[in-house]
Amino acid sequence: MRRPRRSAEETREAILETAERLFRARGYAAVSIADIAGELGMSPANVFKHFRSKLTLGRAIAYRHARRLAERCSIEDLSDPPDRRLTTFLSRLSREHVRDKRENQYLFEMIPLVLEDPAKGGRIYRRLVEEKLCSLIAEGMEEGIYGPGDPVRDAAAIVDMLGCVLNPRMISCADPATLADKTQLIVALVDGGLKNRVVK
Amino acid sequence: MRRPRRSAEETREAILETAERLFRARGYAAVSIADIAGELGMSPANVFKHFRSKLTLGRAIAYRHARRLAERCSIEDLSDPPDRRLTTFLSRLSREHVRDKRENQYLFEMIPLVLEDPAKGGRIYRRLVEEKLCSLIAEGMEEGIYGPGDPVRDAAAIVDMLGCVLNPRMISCADPATLADKTQLIVALVDGGLKNRVVK
Repeated sequence: MRRPRRSAEETREAILETAERLFRARGYAAVSIADIAGELGMSPANVFKHFRSKLTLGRAIAYRHARRLAERCSIEDLSDPPDRRLTTFLSRLSREHVRDKRENQYLFEMIPLVLEDPAKGGRIYRRLVEEKLCSLIAEGMEEGIYGPGDPVRDAAAIVDMLGCVLNPRMISCADPATLADKTQLIVALVDGGLKNRVVK
Repeated sequence: MRRPRRSAEETREAILETAERLFRARGYAAVSIADIAGELGMSPANVFKHFRSKLTLGRAIAYRHARRLAERCSIEDLSDPPDRRLTTFLSRLSREHVRDKRENQYLFEMIPLVLEDPAKGGRIYRRLVEEKLCSLIAEGMEEGIYGPGDPVRDAAAIVDMLGCVLNPRMISCADPATLADKTQLIVALVDGGLKNRVVK
């Protein structure tokens, strides 16, 4: 029996879903485009029509996962003050990383692998986090909660400072309890710093 | 003509000086114990009597260099308040790293190589910096300049936060001007944070 024809958009989505399921179960390196095509009952050539390489496919999945993660970590209630939204965002982000590391080991390992994109001048995931931070810092400065500064540079510096608790490579061998503790310490220092630092 | 006999301490010192000079000039990997012994007109066995391996010798040099670096970065004038001594210490440390990277490339590369010591639970150099920070934070807390907290945990968190500007591996590909700028931002955030964070 022939499957009903899917639109290009539906096919793309089906490939993403199937690939993500297989990557999660067996790991990025162990799953080939042929495996994914086989699961979907299509030819590898057909998969390649939608994603020109396994890296492109992996990157689309990682990017979607990272975007969802960043959304999940944001407080949606905009009546909360920006400083609270910022500290919550960072704490949740660290906690979710630890959970991902535990529950989605294969996906967790895959993300830094595929999201490195030197051609685009850095890491895509990093930029997502920086943009979020930057808008919260700008908001906090406008409201006078934070002292004056440059939100773009601040956001970049904060992501660097939190590298030790956010960067997948750095946290891979850390103990989750220590990590949570350290995140809380760093986030409190950053919060106090944004509010009270002396800008030179 | 025979050289006058040196004491064990003098021989040890002569080996350290010669090895450091050769390591600086040609790099750790390119210099053998035999080269060092040759320069000193002694047998390799004699060098091994004082340092049981090239790693032990490299470690002694790196440790001495790191200790001198940490001392050079400290403000000796104890009438300066601890917060100023802390921010100066961190800024100088970062600047000296950049200079070492530029002027003493071989030594700079050697230090992380030989100072990793998993058996002792981490990095020797890191501990040097943490101890210095810890005592300054404790002093600042006693004087009421910093809010309450645990100086040991704070020092560890701050070294982690500054990893992006202090860790030799991290700064190897960074631009010195950007690095100085980022260090200043992070140090100002840490300073403001220590003074004003809300401890939960």
